[in-house]
Amino acid sequence: MFILISERMQKQIDFIVAIDQLKEITRQNIVIGSKRNENDAEHSWHLAVMAMLLSEYAAEKDLDVLRVIKMVLIHDLVEIDAGDTYCYDEKGYEDKDEREQKAADRLFNFLPADQAKEMMELWREFEEMKTPEAKFAASLDRFQPLLLNFNTGGFTWKRPEATSEKVFKRNDVAKENAPEIYAYAKAIIEDSIKRGILKE
Amino acid sequence: MFILISERMQKQIDFIVAIDQLKEITRQNIVIGSKRNENDAEHSWHLAVMAMLLSEYAAEKDLDVLRVIKMVLIHDLVEIDAGDTYCYDEKGYEDKDEREQKAADRLFNFLPADQAKEMMELWREFEEMKTPEAKFAASLDRFQPLLLNFNTGGFTWKRPEATSEKVFKRNDVAKENAPEIYAYAKAIIEDSIKRGILKE
Repeated sequence: MFILISERMQKQIDFIVAIDQLKEITRQNIVIGSKRNENDAEHSWHLAVMAMLLSEYAAEKDLDVLRVIKMVLIHDLVEIDAGDTYCYDEKGYEDKDEREQKAADRLFNFLPADQAKEMMELWREFEEMKTPEAKFAASLDRFQPLLLNFNTGGFTWKRPEATSEKVFKRNDVAKENAPEIYAYAKAIIEDSIKRGILKE
Repeated sequence: MFILISERMQKQIDFIVAIDQLKEITRQNIVIGSKRNENDAEHSWHLAVMAMLLSEYAAEKDLDVLRVIKMVLIHDLVEIDAGDTYCYDEKGYEDKDEREQKAADRLFNFLPADQAKEMMELWREFEEMKTPEAKFAASLDRFQPLLLNFNTGGFTWKRPEATSEKVFKRNDVAKENAPEIYAYAKAIIEDSIKRGILKE
């Protein structure tokens, strides 16, 4: 893009155009209807709507829902460069942080400095999982693929490395931060084992 | 889904599972990278990030950004039943309201009554385009496909009914409600005519 209203606006538009690429980053999960792979933009949208509807289950009663929504909307942008690392891929996790930090530096710096900083802070907050907002966002990020898996016959659980123990562990963050969501996740996992769509 | 933690939560989960279908509703626009059709979930995600970044251009200085984000996240859900109506399809617009109202009644009522009401209000507010938040949300909803079209050689503008006059008219809502965004849209339209990717 080359049209200039102001340098600030041009940077914002360049970023908005650049992140269109998130729609091409496929995940392991499939969507319920057509069974094709979900992409990161769709996943981020789904999480944002979940944040709107499920915030009442956050253990933190003063949860900043806007911050949670912002976090889930941008949490996967780094995957435009770094790709989606399958959550049970131990090898992929070895250099995940380095790849993603590099991606964040490139992508967020399309934006004017103040907004680049805001994005970087939101992304780091999500990754560090220390604030109530980040913990709730992470709980949703683990719960959404569970819902998709449960409704598609355990699609990604067919991979040998996916076991109920690992799925439980992955959803651990919800245990204290969103107990009802954890209870629901637990019920899904247990039922999935019974149905034979998740290995014990 | 059949697992009950509480009736309230079950309804919320049923809704969250049902709206996965938004990922299957294709739009006229194509994405910049692979040139396949964009879907409504991706479009809604893109608008929500744009709302985060461009709210400074709203004429209304007390804009409730959280409300704008919520609105754009759910504004197309009715298309799960009603389908995407191409914005320059006059025939499709004849019964659009009726089809979409029916869809809203079915979909939003998956939710507990209070959240169904909130969704219905957000959707109606967006459609009626009277509040500053709805006008800004609509400005983004018209501007985003312009960015995609401009970056894909005017893909949907190849259709005979797409003329610069109609594209201008469609972006009219931004003129008073987000003047800088309108100016940018105008520059894109004029440049697109010059390049021969949009008919005058």
